[in-house]
Amino acid sequence: MNEIERNRYFLKDSIRKRIDFSRTPQSMGVEAPPFEKPVPSDAELIDLPVRDWAEVIDVNIVSCIRNRMSRRSYRDAPVSLEELSFLLWATQGIRMVSGNTAFRNVPSAGCRHTFETYLAVFNVDGLDQGLYRYIPSTHRLMVEYRDEGLSERIIEASFHQRFTGESAVTFIWTTVPYRMEWRYGLAAHRVILMDAGHVCQNLYLACEAIGVGTCAVGAYDQEYLDEVLGVDGDDEFAIYMAPVGRV
Amino acid sequence: MNEIERNRYFLKDSIRKRIDFSRTPQSMGVEAPPFEKPVPSDAELIDLPVRDWAEVIDVNIVSCIRNRMSRRSYRDAPVSLEELSFLLWATQGIRMVSGNTAFRNVPSAGCRHTFETYLAVFNVDGLDQGLYRYIPSTHRLMVEYRDEGLSERIIEASFHQRFTGESAVTFIWTTVPYRMEWRYGLAAHRVILMDAGHVCQNLYLACEAIGVGTCAVGAYDQEYLDEVLGVDGDDEFAIYMAPVGRV
Repeated sequence: MNEIERNRYFLKDSIRKRIDFSRTPQSMGVEAPPFEKPVPSDAELIDLPVRDWAEVIDVNIVSCIRNRMSRRSYRDAPVSLEELSFLLWATQGIRMVSGNTAFRNVPSAGCRHTFETYLAVFNVDGLDQGLYRYIPSTHRLMVEYRDEGLSERIIEASFHQRFTGESAVTFIWTTVPYRMEWRYGLAAHRVILMDAGHVCQNLYLACEAIGVGTCAVGAYDQEYLDEVLGVDGDDEFAIYMAPVGRV
Repeated sequence: MNEIERNRYFLKDSIRKRIDFSRTPQSMGVEAPPFEKPVPSDAELIDLPVRDWAEVIDVNIVSCIRNRMSRRSYRDAPVSLEELSFLLWATQGIRMVSGNTAFRNVPSAGCRHTFETYLAVFNVDGLDQGLYRYIPSTHRLMVEYRDEGLSERIIEASFHQRFTGESAVTFIWTTVPYRMEWRYGLAAHRVILMDAGHVCQNLYLACEAIGVGTCAVGAYDQEYLDEVLGVDGDDEFAIYMAPVGRV
């Protein structure tokens, strides 16, 4: 196979017929990995406002689908913590936990949910500029680090797509692929990418519902972005970005 | 790299730094491929009802996100052609065409939109059982073939996940990867899978809005499903499935 054929092969589900599913970690009795990264005991945590979102927001799904656009230009105006809370709820919020399985507001193959959500915060009411991680189990933010210069590093990490650092907040999803491999082995990987699409589409529509805009970014400097996030690039690495700002 | 590492590598955007984008077909001046497969002159075409969907449907986006579930059990009741028309509009409907570029109701990397939508129809008002293809440019269905036995073949193609053939209609998306490769070369493939997630998430939410249910299916017999669809498995092949039915 040449390189294009090899890449096309990856899009297919042909590999499934080669896999002995009796040999996956799940089938071998290995305990399921945790559904979110651990929170250090000395972590600085920030509560996110919790609302009955259907009471606060009432926008027709049809309008959200019809008006959605890739929005790359943002006003220099803040997003509120409540708006951010809604976007996190819509994209990775947890409904119910059962053991090591979390049921979320987005679908995921085998309910494996391999993502972590990092936020590069530039202009959110009540938050210092810096990098945060969403903790779905308690609907909180964890401070990764404060950094007034993060904007320029994010722009560099996206090959100078400036709108990635000129947003109010940029969502950066990482994947922890073992969560999916534990169940599906070598059939884990294509569905991880489809899951990222599910999440990002909910972000698009949820943004439309509250009058902010986003644009998915799939082109970034993998190794540098992973360094900015402080993830190892092997067991966890960036997979998709989405700047969000007022439009 | 072992196989897991190779698959993980595919999830990353590392390859981008290896690509000479001045050598992609687009950069070399090759004309963009058509945004949909050609329709044979003798094709049998069926008009889909066109509505101002925001007048017909008014459901809060928050309810759609909150109530969405993987729904694998369907009542033996038909879906109307109008409902099917809405679901096609929400997932692959075209807003505007400019040359060889079509702007659709879902986002796609570089607006390349590599998908074709096939429908295995089992119980849709006014349609015979069989395989159809959605023609986005004119919002019509094209009859691929009529087949009273299609249900069992779809079930077989999904490794006997019976709900794939016990739905009212099963969406099967194929990809024509060259549409993306034309622009992005070897960086085309991961974003095709993320695009499939965008599309399928819109289907989930649009289904919730009209009281039908769906469940994405990523596990299927690639070669057999491609044969059922009548696609070549190289330049076009199945990528994702989603049965839809009344719940």
